[in-house]
Amino acid sequence: MTVNTENPTAAVVIIGDEILSGRTQDTNVNTLAKFLGSLGIDLIEVRMIHDDAPQIVRTLNELRSAVDYVFTTGGIGPTHDDITADCVAQAFGVTIAEREDALKILLDRYGGDARLLNPNSRRMARIPEGASLILNPVSGAPGFQIENVFVMAGVPRIMAGMLNDVAPRLRQGQQVKARTVKATFVPESLAADILTALDKKYADLSLGSYPFGIFPEEFGTQLVIRGRNREALDEAFQALLDGLPAVVEKARERFPDARFEEIVTQD
Amino acid sequence: MTVNTENPTAAVVIIGDEILSGRTQDTNVNTLAKFLGSLGIDLIEVRMIHDDAPQIVRTLNELRSAVDYVFTTGGIGPTHDDITADCVAQAFGVTIAEREDALKILLDRYGGDARLLNPNSRRMARIPEGASLILNPVSGAPGFQIENVFVMAGVPRIMAGMLNDVAPRLRQGQQVKARTVKATFVPESLAADILTALDKKYADLSLGSYPFGIFPEEFGTQLVIRGRNREALDEAFQALLDGLPAVVEKARERFPDARFEEIVTQD
Repeated sequence: MTVNTENPTAAVVIIGDEILSGRTQDTNVNTLAKFLGSLGIDLIEVRMIHDDAPQIVRTLNELRSAVDYVFTTGGIGPTHDDITADCVAQAFGVTIAEREDALKILLDRYGGDARLLNPNSRRMARIPEGASLILNPVSGAPGFQIENVFVMAGVPRIMAGMLNDVAPRLRQGQQVKARTVKATFVPESLAADILTALDKKYADLSLGSYPFGIFPEEFGTQLVIRGRNREALDEAFQALLDGLPAVVEKARERFPDARFEEIVTQD
Repeated sequence: MTVNTENPTAAVVIIGDEILSGRTQDTNVNTLAKFLGSLGIDLIEVRMIHDDAPQIVRTLNELRSAVDYVFTTGGIGPTHDDITADCVAQAFGVTIAEREDALKILLDRYGGDARLLNPNSRRMARIPEGASLILNPVSGAPGFQIENVFVMAGVPRIMAGMLNDVAPRLRQGQQVKARTVKATFVPESLAADILTALDKKYADLSLGSYPFGIFPEEFGTQLVIRGRNREALDEAFQALLDGLPAVVEKARERFPDARFEEIVTQD
């Protein structure tokens, strides 16, 4: 896949020591990748960085001028290490202060009882100047959008919930479609020739091969063709299906059970 | 956690369209994060990028001068989209060619029968000039190290297998230890004050709070203290344990079942 594209482009920034220490297995990248794919937006790059102000500011400023949209997750909670909002304000050179609409959302979570809202929770109502809120249907405390940067929670369920309010704000591109063949007992290397030929013929498609399983007991290769040009995609996929019997025949010299089938995947 | 450190530093580069399309959930970052943590090496940043030559070369050259070690995964298989080795050669300005020791490893996988090794598989014996091989006990085809860059497979089981040959080549740092309290029915915001106080007192420790569960049915906060100074860690953790009863008492005003316990985690 080429990085140059007429479709909207995006970058994701995962903020949090717990990811880089190995304590937490990130799943937000995958959720965001699928979300962006469904809108036809090209995810160009992901960065995972620490709860470290200079690193956050530098990363934001580098990426927000390089792509159409930047999505951050993490660091907008109530504790001392939640510094993302301040860093975003710093990156944009704007002030940050408690905002009434954000505070009202937090208060509503406590039945309007301000005594239940302690000063730490109130930190979550601090929003950079000029930002618009991103609604959080899961736990209340909002994210925010400033220019082309969308600042969201790190907890996966909360982050996913915020995407409903993010989606309508994004310019959509043409969706990438994918078609997949699962070739069991077919080594990746045997499928390489046909993929190389198709890759040369169809410049605007992306062809991938992904080995699976354990060699030689139970293994194989998934062959994936992706692209926005539906006609080219169908044509290339048919050419793949036409070429695979010869590949499988070759594989059967060593693996008598070699076979292939089209499968439906989510990408 | 501060990014400035006397310990060795590292960056990870995950290469592959399948990660950025959302087709594949990455797990290599987490494996590498734990691996580096166990050696006392600070993982500073992770980047996930496409199978795109300019992007790979640019990312490698940026990171290899910024940290002590760079680890890449993905793109060293037998097919047309496996361009990582060529990009590494380009980044270092060296040639790349088939190498006898690498070819021998591949041949051994096929019982020494060169006819079974097709030209596509042979591509996996192409190694940049001056690199040393990284053994792959799982599927044969080696990775390689050139200067401070370690180039490994993308398939998680294979990548993990290569780490045995990588570990002895790395300068080790002082390991980060972590101690964790699980505070059930305690909102993150109530624990914030004690964390802030400890954070101010212990500059060389890293304190994190991580909400879990679903509010208000079943939720809570994990409080984690990390650091290399074992004495400071123990002292700060004791202070946390001493301060938590008052926090829990406060939480019980709304959540009668609020409680806390020390738990053992892997980080």
